[in-house]
Amino acid sequence: MKNFISVNDVDDVDELIKSALAFKASPLLKSTLGVNKRIGLLFFNPSLRTRISTQIAAQNLGLQVIVLDVDKDGWKLEFDDNAIMSGTTVEHIKDAAPILGSYFDVLGIRSFPTLVHKEQDDSELVIKQFIQYANIPVISLESSTLHPLQSLADLVSIQEEILQSGIQKPTVVLSWAPHIKAIPQCVANSFAEWMLKWNKANFIITHPKGYELNKKYTQGAYITHHQNEALAKADFVYVKNWSAYDDYGKVMDSYASWMIDSKALQQTNHAKIMHCLPVRRNVELSAEVLDSSNSIVTKQAANRVWAAQAVLSKILQNI
Amino acid sequence: MKNFISVNDVDDVDELIKSALAFKASPLLKSTLGVNKRIGLLFFNPSLRTRISTQIAAQNLGLQVIVLDVDKDGWKLEFDDNAIMSGTTVEHIKDAAPILGSYFDVLGIRSFPTLVHKEQDDSELVIKQFIQYANIPVISLESSTLHPLQSLADLVSIQEEILQSGIQKPTVVLSWAPHIKAIPQCVANSFAEWMLKWNKANFIITHPKGYELNKKYTQGAYITHHQNEALAKADFVYVKNWSAYDDYGKVMDSYASWMIDSKALQQTNHAKIMHCLPVRRNVELSAEVLDSSNSIVTKQAANRVWAAQAVLSKILQNI
Amino acid sequence: MKNFISVNDVDDVDELIKSALAFKASPLLKSTLGVNKRIGLLFFNPSLRTRISTQIAAQNLGLQVIVLDVDKDGWKLEFDDNAIMSGTTVEHIKDAAPILGSYFDVLGIRSFPTLVHKEQDDSELVIKQFIQYANIPVISLESSTLHPLQSLADLVSIQEEILQSGIQKPTVVLSWAPHIKAIPQCVANSFAEWMLKWNKANFIITHPKGYELNKKYTQGAYITHHQNEALAKADFVYVKNWSAYDDYGKVMDSYASWMIDSKALQQTNHAKIMHCLPVRRNVELSAEVLDSSNSIVTKQAANRVWAAQAVLSKILQNI
Repeated sequence: MKNFISVNDVDDVDELIKSALAFKASPLLKSTLGVNKRIGLLFFNPSLRTRISTQIAAQNLGLQVIVLDVDKDGWKLEFDDNAIMSGTTVEHIKDAAPILGSYFDVLGIRSFPTLVHKEQDDSELVIKQFIQYANIPVISLESSTLHPLQSLADLVSIQEEILQSGIQKPTVVLSWAPHIKAIPQCVANSFAEWMLKWNKANFIITHPKGYELNKKYTQGAYITHHQNEALAKADFVYVKNWSAYDDYGKVMDSYASWMIDSKALQQTNHAKIMHCLPVRRNVELSAEVLDSSNSIVTKQAANRVWAAQAVLSKILQNI
Repeated sequence: MKNFISVNDVDDVDELIKSALAFKASPLLKSTLGVNKRIGLLFFNPSLRTRISTQIAAQNLGLQVIVLDVDKDGWKLEFDDNAIMSGTTVEHIKDAAPILGSYFDVLGIRSFPTLVHKEQDDSELVIKQFIQYANIPVISLESSTLHPLQSLADLVSIQEEILQSGIQKPTVVLSWAPHIKAIPQCVANSFAEWMLKWNKANFIITHPKGYELNKKYTQGAYITHHQNEALAKADFVYVKNWSAYDDYGKVMDSYASWMIDSKALQQTNHAKIMHCLPVRRNVELSAEVLDSSNSIVTKQAANRVWAAQAVLSKILQNI
Repeated sequence: MKNFISVNDVDDVDELIKSALAFKASPLLKSTLGVNKRIGLLFFNPSLRTRISTQIAAQNLGLQVIVLDVDKDGWKLEFDDNAIMSGTTVEHIKDAAPILGSYFDVLGIRSFPTLVHKEQDDSELVIKQFIQYANIPVISLESSTLHPLQSLADLVSIQEEILQSGIQKPTVVLSWAPHIKAIPQCVANSFAEWMLKWNKANFIITHPKGYELNKKYTQGAYITHHQNEALAKADFVYVKNWSAYDDYGKVMDSYASWMIDSKALQQTNHAKIMHCLPVRRNVELSAEVLDSSNSIVTKQAANRVWAAQAVLSKILQNI
C-alpha cells in the first residue's frame, strides 16, 4: 500500500481489519516501526477524532508527528498549471507539495469538498495533486468524496460485534438521517465502497428520493426509499446525514421522520446503532437510542485509533 | 486523588507542596511514571502559562501530551439532556466526553466562566459534565469558579519564602486591584480556599465594597474594606483583580487608589508581592513594585511547572 | 554563539555551512545533544517552512519542542517602560519574557515588521526585548529586518552547487521581483549581509530605482538598476520581492518586466534559480523557470532543516 485515499488502495480488507484488532489488543505491538520517521498531518478543515486518533496511532508506532493547522484562507493554494498568481492564491501546489515531501516520510491531509463545485470535488483535486507532487505516501484524513479511515474503523466495529455475537452474514443498513446543514457525502460514499468490497454483509442503503449517492460508490448495494423495508432485518443501522449529490450540496425537505428513534429501533433485529459523530441528538438519532445499549458509537470512535494504526503500519512497511 | 478541580480533591495540601518542591529540585524524579500514558489538554479559552507549564510537567513525567485548541464557537457543546439539537450546538457532552475518555488517560480542561449566567458558572457545568461522562481523571486548567493549579503554585511560592526567611505564621493579604475589564473570580476564590485549608498563615482579604467574593470560598478569612488595615502587617500581598460576584460580572468604580505602588508597599512588613500574571502595569501594580526585589511574580509563574507535576504525579499513581 | 538574530552572531560562516551539510549527511549525528532540554517556538506571525524545519531540527537533536501560536491581537505585548496599561496591551515584555525564560532553554521568535513604523522595525524592538528579558538564547525565526535561518539555508544551497560544479568564485545576483503585496525586506537584507560576510562569491544586487535596501546590510555589494547587466554573468539568481525601504513599506509601479522568465534565464550563465518561497508563479518567476532543472527552490527549502540544526547545535553547545 503506497497511499490510502480509498478502499481501492487496499488489497485485503479483511487482513487490514485483523491488523487493527491486533493493535487494539496490543497497542505497542510495533512500537519501533516508525522510529526516526515523521508524519505531517495537514488540516485544511477542523478535526477532533481524526486528529487525536491519528496522532495516537502514529505515536504508538514510534513515529514523530507534526500537526499543521492550515487556514484555508491564509494559505490558499493554486492548482491551475497556467495561473498568473496575482490574485488571492499564495502558493502553487507544485511548489508547496514537494517541500512537505522533503520534510516528512508520510503526509496526512484533510480537505473537505466545496459542495459547490461538483466536478472539482469529484476529481479529488487537492489530495490527488498532493500525491502527484509530494512524492511520499499520502493518507486521507477525509477528502472531498471519501473518509477511508472512518470506514475502516466502522468495519472493525462491525467485525467485533460479529465475533461476539456469532452472526454469520449480518444485514447492515446505511440509513440517511435528517440534519440542518449541508453535510458532505464522504462518510456514506466511503462506507458503501468498503462494505461492498468487504462483502461480509447484506448491505442496504435507504434514503429519501433526491438523496441518491454517486453510483460509483454504491454499485452493487440494494437501495430503497422505504426505510421500514430496510430496517426490518437490520442487524446494524449506520445513521448518517448527507446532502444531495445530484442537486449538488442541496438540503431538501428535512424528512424529520427519518430520525432513528426507539420506535424505529424496534422494527430492527435488535440492531446495533452506528454513527461517525458528531451527532445531532434528537435530529439524526434520538437521545434514547444513543443512550441505549444498542448504540456502539463510542466504541466506533475509539476504534479510529486502531484503524489508523493498521493503515500507518501497512504504509511504513513499504517505505 | 481522582480528579483535581478544587482543594477539596486534596487530602494533604502540605504534602502536595512538598512534592512540588521535590520536583523543582529534581525535575526528572519520576520521569517514567507516565510512560505509555497520554494526557489531553483541552482549551476552550486561550492560555500561555498554564499551557506551557502543564505540558512541561507532563513531559517530565514521561507522559505523551496532545493539546487541543477548541474554538468555542466552532465546537459548541450541548449540555441539556433533552435538547433537540437543531440549533448552534454541534455535539452533546454525552457523546463527546466518553470518546476523549477512550483516547486519553488523563484530561485537562480550561473553560472560563460566562460572567453572565451566574448559576451555570457556579455549578461548574462544563468541567463536572466532563468528569461525569469522560470516565477518566480530569484536571482543571482553570474552570468557571476556580484555578487550583495556580493556587498550588501560589502556596509553593509562599512556602519557599517561609523556608528561606524562617517566618513562623506569616500574614498573607489578598488585595483586590483595579482593572479595565471584567475578570473572573477564579484565582481569588481558589487562593482563598487553598489558604484556608492549608492554614499556615493569617489570611486577610481586602477589597472595596461590592466586590465580595462567594462566601463558599472565603468562609473563615478575615475580610476588610480598609486596604491600609490589611497591608499593615502583611508579609505577602497577593494583588489580583476580580469582577463583582453579587452584581455578577460587573466592573464598578475603578478605585484607582487600590493599585499597589511603592507607598502601599511601605505600609507592609517588607511584603513579598504576588500576582498570577498577566498583570496590567501601573493599573493593578506599579512598575516600580513589579521591578523591585519584593516582587516574586516570575518565581510564582515558574512554580506552575512543579505544581502541575505534583498533581499529575499524584493522579498517575492512582490510575 | 549565544543568540542567533543576524550574521553578526556568527564567528565563522563557513564552519556553520559545513556543520549544516554534516547534518544533512547524517541527521542524527548529535541526537542526544538536546536531551532534557526544551525549545519554545513563539509565532506572532504565520509560518510553514520555518515552523516545520525548526521543529524537525530540534527533534533531530533530542530537544523537546513546544510551539506557541500567539494571536498578535489576543496577546498584545507592551514595550513602553512607563506605560499605564489601561489600553489594549495585555502584558508587558518585562513580565512575559522572564517566564518564557524560566520554562525554556532556548526561545525561537517570529515577529514580522509593521512596514509602517520604520524606526521601530529597524530597532528590532520585539526580538531585542526578548533577548534582554528572557535571559536565555534567542533564535530569530524571522524578525522585522532579517531572516538568518533562511540565509544560512541559502548559503548551504549555494555551497552544495559549488561543490558539485567546481565553480571557483560564482556570481550571485539578488534580483528584485514584482509582487502584488507589500513584502518585508528581511530575506533580502539578510541574504545580503550573509553573502558579504561569507565573501565566497561576486555579489550583485539589482532592483528598480526606489527599491534601495537599507545600506546597513548592503554596504560592499555591487548594486545596479539594470537587471540585464546583473544577469549577464550570473551563476545564481536569487529572485525576491521586497517593498520600498526609503518610502517605507510602499509598493510602487509593478515593473512586470522584472519577472524572471526563460528569456531572462538565457541571459545568465546557466544560472541556478533561487527563491525562499512561497512564490507567486508567473508574477515573480515564470512557471517555466520554476519547473526547469535550473530551479533549486525545493532543495533550498529542504535545506532549512539542516541550517536550523547547525544553529541549534551551536547554541546548545554553549548552554
